[in-house]
Amino acid sequence: MRAIFKTSPEPGATEFREVPIPRPGPDDFLIKITICSICGTDVHIYNWDNWAQSRIHPPLLYGHEFAGEVVETGERVKEIQVGDYVSAEGHIYCGTCYQCRTGMRHICSRLNILGVDTQGIFAEYASIPAQNVWKNDPDLPMEYATIQDPLGNSVHTVFAADVPGKNVLILGCGPTGLFSTAICNHIGAAQIFATEDLNEYRASIAKKVGADAVFLRGDDAETEIMEATDGIGVDVVLEFTGAPQAVNQGLHLLRPGGTMVLLGVFSKDFTTDLTENVVFKYATLQGITGRLIWDTWYRMRGLFRSGLNVDPIITHTFKFSEFPEAMDIMRRGESGKIVLYME
Amino acid sequence: MRAIFKTSPEPGATEFREVPIPRPGPDDFLIKITICSICGTDVHIYNWDNWAQSRIHPPLLYGHEFAGEVVETGERVKEIQVGDYVSAEGHIYCGTCYQCRTGMRHICSRLNILGVDTQGIFAEYASIPAQNVWKNDPDLPMEYATIQDPLGNSVHTVFAADVPGKNVLILGCGPTGLFSTAICNHIGAAQIFATEDLNEYRASIAKKVGADAVFLRGDDAETEIMEATDGIGVDVVLEFTGAPQAVNQGLHLLRPGGTMVLLGVFSKDFTTDLTENVVFKYATLQGITGRLIWDTWYRMRGLFRSGLNVDPIITHTFKFSEFPEAMDIMRRGESGKIVLYME
Amino acid sequence: MRAIFKTSPEPGATEFREVPIPRPGPDDFLIKITICSICGTDVHIYNWDNWAQSRIHPPLLYGHEFAGEVVETGERVKEIQVGDYVSAEGHIYCGTCYQCRTGMRHICSRLNILGVDTQGIFAEYASIPAQNVWKNDPDLPMEYATIQDPLGNSVHTVFAADVPGKNVLILGCGPTGLFSTAICNHIGAAQIFATEDLNEYRASIAKKVGADAVFLRGDDAETEIMEATDGIGVDVVLEFTGAPQAVNQGLHLLRPGGTMVLLGVFSKDFTTDLTENVVFKYATLQGITGRLIWDTWYRMRGLFRSGLNVDPIITHTFKFSEFPEAMDIMRRGESGKIVLYME
Amino acid sequence: MRAIFKTSPEPGATEFREVPIPRPGPDDFLIKITICSICGTDVHIYNWDNWAQSRIHPPLLYGHEFAGEVVETGERVKEIQVGDYVSAEGHIYCGTCYQCRTGMRHICSRLNILGVDTQGIFAEYASIPAQNVWKNDPDLPMEYATIQDPLGNSVHTVFAADVPGKNVLILGCGPTGLFSTAICNHIGAAQIFATEDLNEYRASIAKKVGADAVFLRGDDAETEIMEATDGIGVDVVLEFTGAPQAVNQGLHLLRPGGTMVLLGVFSKDFTTDLTENVVFKYATLQGITGRLIWDTWYRMRGLFRSGLNVDPIITHTFKFSEFPEAMDIMRRGESGKIVLYME
Repeated sequence: MRAIFKTSPEPGATEFREVPIPRPGPDDFLIKITICSICGTDVHIYNWDNWAQSRIHPPLLYGHEFAGEVVETGERVKEIQVGDYVSAEGHIYCGTCYQCRTGMRHICSRLNILGVDTQGIFAEYASIPAQNVWKNDPDLPMEYATIQDPLGNSVHTVFAADVPGKNVLILGCGPTGLFSTAICNHIGAAQIFATEDLNEYRASIAKKVGADAVFLRGDDAETEIMEATDGIGVDVVLEFTGAPQAVNQGLHLLRPGGTMVLLGVFSKDFTTDLTENVVFKYATLQGITGRLIWDTWYRMRGLFRSGLNVDPIITHTFKFSEFPEAMDIMRRGESGKIVLYME
Repeated sequence: MRAIFKTSPEPGATEFREVPIPRPGPDDFLIKITICSICGTDVHIYNWDNWAQSRIHPPLLYGHEFAGEVVETGERVKEIQVGDYVSAEGHIYCGTCYQCRTGMRHICSRLNILGVDTQGIFAEYASIPAQNVWKNDPDLPMEYATIQDPLGNSVHTVFAADVPGKNVLILGCGPTGLFSTAICNHIGAAQIFATEDLNEYRASIAKKVGADAVFLRGDDAETEIMEATDGIGVDVVLEFTGAPQAVNQGLHLLRPGGTMVLLGVFSKDFTTDLTENVVFKYATLQGITGRLIWDTWYRMRGLFRSGLNVDPIITHTFKFSEFPEAMDIMRRGESGKIVLYME
Repeated sequence: MRAIFKTSPEPGATEFREVPIPRPGPDDFLIKITICSICGTDVHIYNWDNWAQSRIHPPLLYGHEFAGEVVETGERVKEIQVGDYVSAEGHIYCGTCYQCRTGMRHICSRLNILGVDTQGIFAEYASIPAQNVWKNDPDLPMEYATIQDPLGNSVHTVFAADVPGKNVLILGCGPTGLFSTAICNHIGAAQIFATEDLNEYRASIAKKVGADAVFLRGDDAETEIMEATDGIGVDVVLEFTGAPQAVNQGLHLLRPGGTMVLLGVFSKDFTTDLTENVVFKYATLQGITGRLIWDTWYRMRGLFRSGLNVDPIITHTFKFSEFPEAMDIMRRGESGKIVLYME
Repeated sequence: MRAIFKTSPEPGATEFREVPIPRPGPDDFLIKITICSICGTDVHIYNWDNWAQSRIHPPLLYGHEFAGEVVETGERVKEIQVGDYVSAEGHIYCGTCYQCRTGMRHICSRLNILGVDTQGIFAEYASIPAQNVWKNDPDLPMEYATIQDPLGNSVHTVFAADVPGKNVLILGCGPTGLFSTAICNHIGAAQIFATEDLNEYRASIAKKVGADAVFLRGDDAETEIMEATDGIGVDVVLEFTGAPQAVNQGLHLLRPGGTMVLLGVFSKDFTTDLTENVVFKYATLQGITGRLIWDTWYRMRGLFRSGLNVDPIITHTFKFSEFPEAMDIMRRGESGKIVLYME
């Protein structure tokens, strides 16, 4: 089969290779991939940044966002069958550590991430542990099925706070920030404010999916947000930038007793005035990673059934063979989510 | 001023009287009423049913749903001023009992209800305790401002459960059931099922405001709902009928670990199999009454700001002088909410 | 090996039989039982009541409360090893239904109960699914290790409400009521009131483990409890009787906005005034069954480490061969928990 | 009457003055002080540190922890009467801002603190707003009644996390850290670890009130705590030091998915690795200030009724006239709480 590999420990170094179709173990499903999508993590692997250098061991078949069809089932699996339309949770958990035993499998102490710590899914076929496979609603559009991993990050983040009828500030208009904007709008946030550094393209998508106002670098977000919230500040801040100054801006605009949820990953230390921004503010800060397995997925299914629309965020569609062009656009930030159809 | 009185302890016995404009005390506001609306409670008072007989002492100026303009302020009040556009929370609380001191003023142990235990607002003017007055957003439509008391009941009920992305069953399509349907739809409920005894008119409104299916008496709600929920049952049941058999139907359709919230008032005892319906089902039942003061009101404001639309539920508009016709329609159940403009 | 069987579908019909030691499957542990204890469920099986008749298929090796030592491990199990000191969760779950996938394995839709739906542990050895085995702290007394299934019911029940610093009413002084009394006392309940029908022996144990007052049939519980709670009522009611009138008494004594948690199993219908007892009371009712897998077990371990003392509730110790005498005492209600050591 | 004043803006500058007994307004109580205690805040005022310089306007009658007897009541107050035994909540709130209207009066946007922003209670009499007065249980020891403000801080902090049966790390053994240790022990924390910089005296008190281990500067807290928690880390960290390095130590020892609650006030910026310590750790951070009005006070009353013992923390008793010696001991850190009886 055809598959995309990170071939060596250096920037780029990504190429198509012909490899054998994997054999599913007794607890696995073999899945024929029909669509996949590119995650920010894949860009890190491509760019070979510090994180990638510390974590990735080439050669690696990467990628973890997909939808496909089950074509073979391991001997011990049940529930899902050949022909079923599926996607997968990318966090592969041990099932026996403290976190796995108490409802927090997404932060398993022996966590492996699909396409990062194991062979991934930028390929015609993939063998996936049965415990990670999710059966999609038959009528779920493929473009939606493949982006459930990052959309699930956003669902997890948004539902860590109390959003309906509340004022929300979204820091960062990358794909997870945009998905979160769409979700907050879909579930009745009172007002949605978003910030974005410089990318006007992404700011424009934020407005399409429900942001009442988007503030770029240099805009006076503070004055406008405080005025729009009757001088109180926002009830909820959702952080997707990984930028320390954005967190401080968010804490500053958070109302007393409000909640900040953080999904963004930081490349440098964060410094703040804890007394003013957390203690006296009576603030709640909640770190988020991954998705609740499977609570978040059921919630996401329910949001799909209720009509959640994320079309404006899926900005580009390519063929699998056009992966280089797709990655190029992702790297330039000139996109929302990019999906690739198998040929 | 002109005011509507329950004049004597018997059915009907409702008439317009000319009485002096009330004088606000030092902790009150005098409000010029611009719009009011009729509550089911007002129908009980009119009909002089068992509840009314046990609670109401005619002559009583009744009514408690309204919006208006502050025309005079007591000497000790602050924050709200002459000219402000206001409505009021109908639960008048003592402020010093255990519940009042711990965030549950809506179940104050010395609770008085506006227009039930005190003189109400079906009149040109009303004097209202400052602690109960709510300043509306200036651009809130009057029809929305006057129905915040019952809409707030629905907000309180819906937010006692976890609705976004979940399957919800709404028992009863009276005004609070309809409002709840609109709210559940607005905040992204996966699927909304509703039941209604016989009133096809109200069932049709339920569909307009977001019910995916409405089941009338005789329909096979059970088969359809279990099928639509993949055999699991609904995550949430919201009860507005006050009918014991509806509660049992709801408990039956509730999924294991689900939540039922009850606002309906029952005129007779309720009998159930607690083991199957609550204990082994791991169910949560939550009684609801009134509105959280002021948490529910802020939430409701936020939902208005996010575009909550309840227009199809406000079915009739009358002049204040047409109160008899309005009450007549209410009593026949041929309406959603009815609002009356002062002349 | 020697094992205790329900031999035929009639009252009693319980005898020791010699059977082969079971062979563990690839996902099982073989455990040498060192101690076991008798549950109320075992009494139902012995007595052959309606529930037993509808559920049990003799011949059945029954019993599900135990501690022992792992003597053989299936080929696919991990984490726990030969020689480990273990007990087991009695709810055997499928792992793939909606509840299992969302943190509610204790109410699995395909639930089997050890020693009820499967062969049990009143025997020298038992083969138990690895997913159900719990490794005990090495210094946990055996009498405590064997009673973790019912103690876990109580932990689950108590922690479904907010007990520290609160007034609690416990309905019923059977073993789970007594365990709950000890737990509530251990975690700082303000005052603990208990009711018991007629059994003065159990009432006296309740006082030993921390009840401030125990009310028997005929006592004026209402006057005393309302007075002791400053006329407000109790914050929390925990129900272990399965008696409808006890539930109504509890709802009556519950303060506005309070919580009732129900573990007791009812043999007849329950009738109540929902309006007064739930809706206007703003009450929360929570059904409980089983134990959260494994959250409740970790919590229980922590309570043991903090010094939870349930010694007064473990009233009798027998040898395994003395099972008939032990069952006889249990059936007469002249005991708390009874434990049996293997010989 | 005799009263203690901060007389001028410089270190020390504290002296007894003879001033008129205050006259209670219509919404106040006049209270004869019978006991008072010294808070860390009072030490800041005495020392005239940066915080004091920015906030305090001498001359100021300071102090806010006390118990006493009502001797005169304002004309509009109710519920509490002459002769009642009372203490007071020190946070004076407006009652009309967003926070006050939604159950967060302790973070009122117009907050005044008794004895900081208003005249305090280091005096023979004090006039206190009725909304801030708390009626003590008649049998509550005076030493306990006077320390409810700081003990309430600890109750608020402890109950912001889930402590019973859980492993807890307490950062800092000043009075609020010690109170929290006693509370965690009282409500069944599995294991309690505490850290203290250098003060062995306070470390020894921590052990008396329930700490399983106390780590001083230089001790290898990390190895011991990780070992004692089976390599998982603690479930809960409670922060009382205001020292950035302590927060980082706490976050490091917090288990994945754990909760840190912060009451300590920081004099310098805090720097951390948000990704490791919050985002990937799935941590919850909760800032705390003040006490929930009155939820925390009712909880505290319940804990007193259940036998909470904080005697070892109240290390010194003085006469009011010995205030200078008492303050001297407080400033040297050679005490837990110090109480002063009026003469």
